[in-house]
Amino acid sequence: MTVLVFLDPAHADGRVADASQPQLMISDLGATRGDGIFESLLAVGGAPRKEQAHLVRLAASAEALGLAVPEAEVWSRAIRTGLREFAAVEPDREKAVVKLIATRGVEGAERPTAWVQVAPVPESGRRQREEGLKVLFLERGYDSTVAQRAPWLLMGAKTLSYAVNMAAIRHAKAEGADDVIFTSSDGKVLEGPTSTVLLAHDRDGVKTLLTPQLESGILAGTSQGALFAAAKEQGWELGYGPLEPHHLLEADAVWLISSIRLLAPVVSLDGQEIRSSAALTAELTELVDRFV
Amino acid sequence: MTVLVFLDPAHADGRVADASQPQLMISDLGATRGDGIFESLLAVGGAPRKEQAHLVRLAASAEALGLAVPEAEVWSRAIRTGLREFAAVEPDREKAVVKLIATRGVEGAERPTAWVQVAPVPESGRRQREEGLKVLFLERGYDSTVAQRAPWLLMGAKTLSYAVNMAAIRHAKAEGADDVIFTSSDGKVLEGPTSTVLLAHDRDGVKTLLTPQLESGILAGTSQGALFAAAKEQGWELGYGPLEPHHLLEADAVWLISSIRLLAPVVSLDGQEIRSSAALTAELTELVDRFV
Repeated sequence: MTVLVFLDPAHADGRVADASQPQLMISDLGATRGDGIFESLLAVGGAPRKEQAHLVRLAASAEALGLAVPEAEVWSRAIRTGLREFAAVEPDREKAVVKLIATRGVEGAERPTAWVQVAPVPESGRRQREEGLKVLFLERGYDSTVAQRAPWLLMGAKTLSYAVNMAAIRHAKAEGADDVIFTSSDGKVLEGPTSTVLLAHDRDGVKTLLTPQLESGILAGTSQGALFAAAKEQGWELGYGPLEPHHLLEADAVWLISSIRLLAPVVSLDGQEIRSSAALTAELTELVDRFV
Repeated sequence: MTVLVFLDPAHADGRVADASQPQLMISDLGATRGDGIFESLLAVGGAPRKEQAHLVRLAASAEALGLAVPEAEVWSRAIRTGLREFAAVEPDREKAVVKLIATRGVEGAERPTAWVQVAPVPESGRRQREEGLKVLFLERGYDSTVAQRAPWLLMGAKTLSYAVNMAAIRHAKAEGADDVIFTSSDGKVLEGPTSTVLLAHDRDGVKTLLTPQLESGILAGTSQGALFAAAKEQGWELGYGPLEPHHLLEADAVWLISSIRLLAPVVSLDGQEIRSSAALTAELTELVDRFV
């Protein structure tokens, strides 16, 4: 079941509410305008992973939207309340998805609505990690420089306005694929609708991990960031785009990484099988599994 | 106050609910992903205006999102229920805003959540119609041909993912303007965040009304459509883009038109005063006021 904790000034540790009942006002601008922000993080054994990285990104998203959300510490306390409640009602689940959501609030109220929800991890992630992903390249419509000149487009903010991300995944599924990698109108590799793109080279004993550059308007991946730090300690070289589709086709391995599904290998791009590496996947997965 | 009517198979005319209480589930994909569609229409004297045009566009939006929403007739009945309730609780208000919203529903439920809400018309519209709008051109990031090759971008669908539209309006207000006209990355005039762009020429006794062409990925304006039909009957010539900013600067008048604010004259573009025409505004407003 899902546990719900509202951030509420009257309750220092958050206010637990019944997630099986309606709890949102119909005029909440999160529901009527997708005007809000979110984060999804994994908790293992009751402890949230990469909590600070998620809270830092949440604050950056809030800044981009001009949204006055509660302080990190308030979120932290609500997350702990949620995880404690979840452990009580779902004692056999080691893992949980923790979502942090803040909307612009009820129309006219001028006060954000903010909550934490804790729920079981969907089963589909494990299957996709094991079987790999068939991925389509789909155009995102933006060029890779627009983020820097048009802040109102909210590029790099994780907003609740995800209808296009969801539509892209539906489009991929209708075509027999599992997921999407967005490309810019000038032909650069961007990101997945809910993940960050990674690729590796393993040549002459040098292992290199690459990801598209942030300046292209993509979301700063918390898992990508943590994996880069961990891989560097293990002697990997690191690199940041610009990347084009041919770089992915030529790589020794490509993955989509995200906080809940974790590291999922890409096995085909636009129907063309690509190289993958069970050894590299295993090596990097070990690093991902050690994230705290 | 706001009246709320859920579309509910168990209630042929809709199920009235208390809008002052939480009525939405926290896991509704409308709230967590902006995954849904909407329409806003004006009701005058208890009768919805341009109802069929709005219901046709709602159906087109639903189609674009692959959303199985109730039939037009079911919406119509719920609208009537909402307007009847509104008249009972707000007997002195001649006008009302009627919102139709459908989301992808609660996560996992595979059934849309759909409702009608009826609320008072905001006061700001009258002021903006009278004083005119200071407007900024802001880049929308897309080129004017992307809609035709990338249906997953949901161009032309009226989705709940309006965070960018809202951010653009906030950006304009921070710059001392009132509203925005989006331009494409290839320099074409698109639309306002919540309105359609119109311009007029009045030359040698020939009056011409122009609007950007739909193929550029803009929303089909129901008010623009109704006004074009009415103006044509009055002898106006009609034209459809492509339009560029200089066409607006050279016009005899420019307006933003929408269902609730109606016809609002633009008085400046990027800080530069432009021509306006009280006579043309009055003539077209008379047509708008006759919409049924």
